[in-house]
Amino acid sequence: MDISIERNILEANDNVAQELRAIFAEKKVLVLNLISSPGSGKTSLLEKTLSDLRDEFKIGVIEGDCQTDNDAKRVAATGAKAIQINTDGGCHLDSKMIKNVINDFDLANIDILFIENVGNLVCPVEFDCGEDAKIAILSVAEGDDKPEKYPRLFQLAHAMVINKIDLLDYVDFNVERAKKFGKSLNNDIEVFEVSCRTKQGLDSWYAWLRKQVSLKQEK
Amino acid sequence: MDISIERNILEANDNVAQELRAIFAEKKVLVLNLISSPGSGKTSLLEKTLSDLRDEFKIGVIEGDCQTDNDAKRVAATGAKAIQINTDGGCHLDSKMIKNVINDFDLANIDILFIENVGNLVCPVEFDCGEDAKIAILSVAEGDDKPEKYPRLFQLAHAMVINKIDLLDYVDFNVERAKKFGKSLNNDIEVFEVSCRTKQGLDSWYAWLRKQVSLKQEK
Repeated sequence: MDISIERNILEANDNVAQELRAIFAEKKVLVLNLISSPGSGKTSLLEKTLSDLRDEFKIGVIEGDCQTDNDAKRVAATGAKAIQINTDGGCHLDSKMIKNVINDFDLANIDILFIENVGNLVCPVEFDCGEDAKIAILSVAEGDDKPEKYPRLFQLAHAMVINKIDLLDYVDFNVERAKKFGKSLNNDIEVFEVSCRTKQGLDSWYAWLRKQVSLKQEK
Repeated sequence: MDISIERNILEANDNVAQELRAIFAEKKVLVLNLISSPGSGKTSLLEKTLSDLRDEFKIGVIEGDCQTDNDAKRVAATGAKAIQINTDGGCHLDSKMIKNVINDFDLANIDILFIENVGNLVCPVEFDCGEDAKIAILSVAEGDDKPEKYPRLFQLAHAMVINKIDLLDYVDFNVERAKKFGKSLNNDIEVFEVSCRTKQGLDSWYAWLRKQVSLKQEK
């Protein structure tokens, strides 16, 4: 794409993202943008989190998908409020799409808003949606070289969730190698090793979420 | 993105793709564009194919990656000629990138040219690279709903390789469901169930490749 066109698109996106960030700050809503490859387990992580923390926090979810509302249905089944954005083949969510739906939430009564982006390790990374943090999710079935091969997400993410660790015995994935790459790109990145299937490791993820919510509410 | 800009970009891409297609036709090179999520096993499928068919066919590989030349090194280790295209963060290969490197191959002495696209189920689908066929690769760890959620690739692909079937006992993946979705989008799609780890199912993939090469050479 022509570089100047791309710059204009990203600038326009950033302007709307700053508007959103001001709204989320005023309402004290922690906003987390979940980014991963297709099938890394974003929706499964949300299902577990929403079920396990439903008595602690009021949580909303924006579900981005190229097609179908399957994920929004899975999330809504936990009792959480979920809004679907269908990009009709588009490869990422942008701030304007988020702005178009946030009035469907009662933001004053939400502690955490999760944005589940389109499954894509590349394009969603460049489009700020007004979030407090991007969360990178990586399944051990994808290989431990993903931070090295798709570095931009891991440079910007606040946390990296290594999911499906119940499969570690059956795949070639060196957790230390993936962590080392992630940390070399971004020394501050928090790393969680979890299995949404067995629930192993989810407690650390929940502890981190609690801390982020209280930091946001103190601001 | 502005629709007219997007249309212009795709038209310019299609024009170069048609030039490439004429060159590949003249040289009788079968060109296959491998598209999948990150970590579905495109490079592993290439490693096995290049090793197992090295005495039958002369094979070239164009490796597309956001960063690193890890995959080109893995492919070159089989003895095949591999050219790396580093997109510097870009989310797909396009026809102009392919045109820029094809003179590095002796096309008159190549039977099959594999293009390993950037790991991304969305963007690469729209950018014709002059190939004879797109090949969709899907790991069973990603979930059987991917054809439904990312339909465009499966509508256009000539073949769908379901990879990592050695993991079927450990994940929730219904092969029949994935095949049914794939076939509902594209009744002519060929489906292969393989494990690059155990080599299960690769013979059917090789038989299909042999048939495609002979069809191309008869043209």
